[in-house]
Amino acid sequence: MTYCVAMRLDQGLVFLSDSRTNAGVDQVSTFRKMLVFERPGDRMMVMMTAGNLAISQAVRQIISERTNDDGTSVWNAANMFDAVRLVGDAVREVHQRDAQALSDAGIEFNVSILFGGQIKGERCRLFLVYAAGNFIEAHAEGPYFQIGESKYGKPILDRVVSPTIPLDQAAKCALISMDSTLRSNISVGLPLDLLVYEANSLRVSRFSTIDTKNQYFQMIHDTWGQRLKQIFDEIPDPQWEDRTDSQLNDNGRRHASAPVRAFAPAWLDTPKKIMPSVSPLQTLAEDPMSPQAR
Amino acid sequence: MTYCVAMRLDQGLVFLSDSRTNAGVDQVSTFRKMLVFERPGDRMMVMMTAGNLAISQAVRQIISERTNDDGTSVWNAANMFDAVRLVGDAVREVHQRDAQALSDAGIEFNVSILFGGQIKGERCRLFLVYAAGNFIEAHAEGPYFQIGESKYGKPILDRVVSPTIPLDQAAKCALISMDSTLRSNISVGLPLDLLVYEANSLRVSRFSTIDTKNQYFQMIHDTWGQRLKQIFDEIPDPQWEDRTDSQLNDNGRRHASAPVRAFAPAWLDTPKKIMPSVSPLQTLAEDPMSPQAR
Repeated sequence: MTYCVAMRLDQGLVFLSDSRTNAGVDQVSTFRKMLVFERPGDRMMVMMTAGNLAISQAVRQIISERTNDDGTSVWNAANMFDAVRLVGDAVREVHQRDAQALSDAGIEFNVSILFGGQIKGERCRLFLVYAAGNFIEAHAEGPYFQIGESKYGKPILDRVVSPTIPLDQAAKCALISMDSTLRSNISVGLPLDLLVYEANSLRVSRFSTIDTKNQYFQMIHDTWGQRLKQIFDEIPDPQWEDRTDSQLNDNGRRHASAPVRAFAPAWLDTPKKIMPSVSPLQTLAEDPMSPQAR
Repeated sequence: MTYCVAMRLDQGLVFLSDSRTNAGVDQVSTFRKMLVFERPGDRMMVMMTAGNLAISQAVRQIISERTNDDGTSVWNAANMFDAVRLVGDAVREVHQRDAQALSDAGIEFNVSILFGGQIKGERCRLFLVYAAGNFIEAHAEGPYFQIGESKYGKPILDRVVSPTIPLDQAAKCALISMDSTLRSNISVGLPLDLLVYEANSLRVSRFSTIDTKNQYFQMIHDTWGQRLKQIFDEIPDPQWEDRTDSQLNDNGRRHASAPVRAFAPAWLDTPKKIMPSVSPLQTLAEDPMSPQAR
C-alpha cells in the first residue's frame, strides 16, 4: 500500500509520502510516490500517487511528457485548475486503455492522486483526484488530504491541522501521522519524501528524503511513543464507584446501565430463579438503552 | 459502521463496543452490539458483532435460542472452543439461508464477531470469528482483536496493550482507542458498552454503558486531546540545517536527498540551463534513492 498526506496552509503547502509498494506480501519493493514539477519563478507542483502502481506510473508518464494538440501541458497551464484537469484527463486516458484488461483479470482500476502547488499569479492550491478523473479541492475547513492507508494517521491530523499553523509544525504533524501509520501497518515503509513549499516562492523551499538514519524522524518516533505512553499513564484509571452521577458503578445491575443479556433457556438448571420465557426479540425491546425504556 | 475491541489479559478480559448502526448516512440508528451470556459460577461469555445488522441479529438469535439435536448449546458447551464453534456454525447457517439473496441484491455477506469469556475449569479465551464461520484465537503476542472501523484506534493499542497490564488500564486504553475512532469517523457513535471480566470470577465483574453524560469518558476525551496537543507542541519542529549527518538540509539539492523531478520539455523557454532529453524511465533510473545510485 501507500500513505501520502498533503496540507494547504496559509503559509504554503506540505507534502509527505512513503515509498513502499507491494503486490502481495511476498513482493514488496520501494517506489517513490512523489514527483515534482518545478520551473523556478513560474510554477512548483507536486504529484503523489496511491493505488495500482502500473496505473500510477502511466499517469505520471503522460503528465510529464504530454503536450496536447492545442499546446497545453502542466508546464504551461495558466492555473492549477487547468493543470489538475490535465491530471484527470491522464487518469481517464489510462482507464480507457487498461480498465477492460484489468477487469478481465479481476483487478479493480484503483488509483488516487494528490496534486498541489502554485502557478505564478495564483494562490497555493491542493487537489485530490479520484480514479474516475474527477477531483475535489482542499479548503479552509478541510485543509488536508490523505491517500492510501489513511486511517491510522488521521486522528493526529484532526487534532492539530488548521490553516493557520506554521509550515514546520505542519511538517512535524505529517511525520507523526506517518509514524503512527508505519507502526501499525507493514504495507507502509521508509524512506519518506517530505517537501515543504513556502507560498509565493515558486520553487521547492525545503525537501528531505527520510530514511532509518534520519535523526529528526528517529527522535519523533522515539519521543512520540514515550510521551504517548507517559500521558496514558497520567490519565487516571476508571473508578468503579456506585455513584448516581456516573454510570461507572460496581456492577451496573443496580442502575440503568446494564448489559444486554441473552436469557438462558428454561431447561437449564438455573438455581434460585426461573428464567422468563421471552423471545430474544422481546429481550431487545426491554433493553434499557432502547428509546422505550430510557 | 461499528467499532469493537476486546483484549485477553493475564488478569481477565475487557470488551468495548459502540452502538451506531447505519444504512447509508441518512439512516443512522442505535443498536447495542454487545450481548452477554452469563450463568454465574458456571460461565460468562460476551459476543460483539460488526457488519451487516440483519446477519448479526440472526446470528445472535440463533446462538441465544438454539439447542442442537445432540443437546449442545453455548449454555452447556464444555469449553470455549466448543462454544465458539457453535458461533461459527450459526454464521454458516445464516449464510446458507441469506447469502444468495444478498448476492442477488448486490450485497456482500459481511459479518465479523468477537466472542470471548470463560467456562468453569478453563482459562479465559477470546476469538475472532470471520464471515466464513472460521475463527482465530487471541494469544500472548496478539492479545487484542478489533472489528469494524479498527484502524483509527489501532495505534494506541499497539503502543500500550500487553498481556501483563492491569484490567483497568486496559479499559482506559480501550476507551482512548474508541475516542480516537469517534473523533475521526462519524459512523461510530455513543453510547458505548464497556465490560470488564476478572479471570475466574465466572460472572460479569464490572459493566458500564457510557453516554455523553459519563464524566470519566468526558475527562478522557478532553484530557487526551489536550495532552496530545501539548506533547505535540513540546516536540521540536524540524531544523532544516545543512549537516552531513542529517538529510534535513536547506534545499536537498546539495546532497543525496533530492526529490524525483519531472523534466520540463525542451521546447519550454527554460533560462540558464538546457533540459536533458531523457525519457521519464531514464529519470527514474537516475533517482538518487535507487539502489544503483546509493
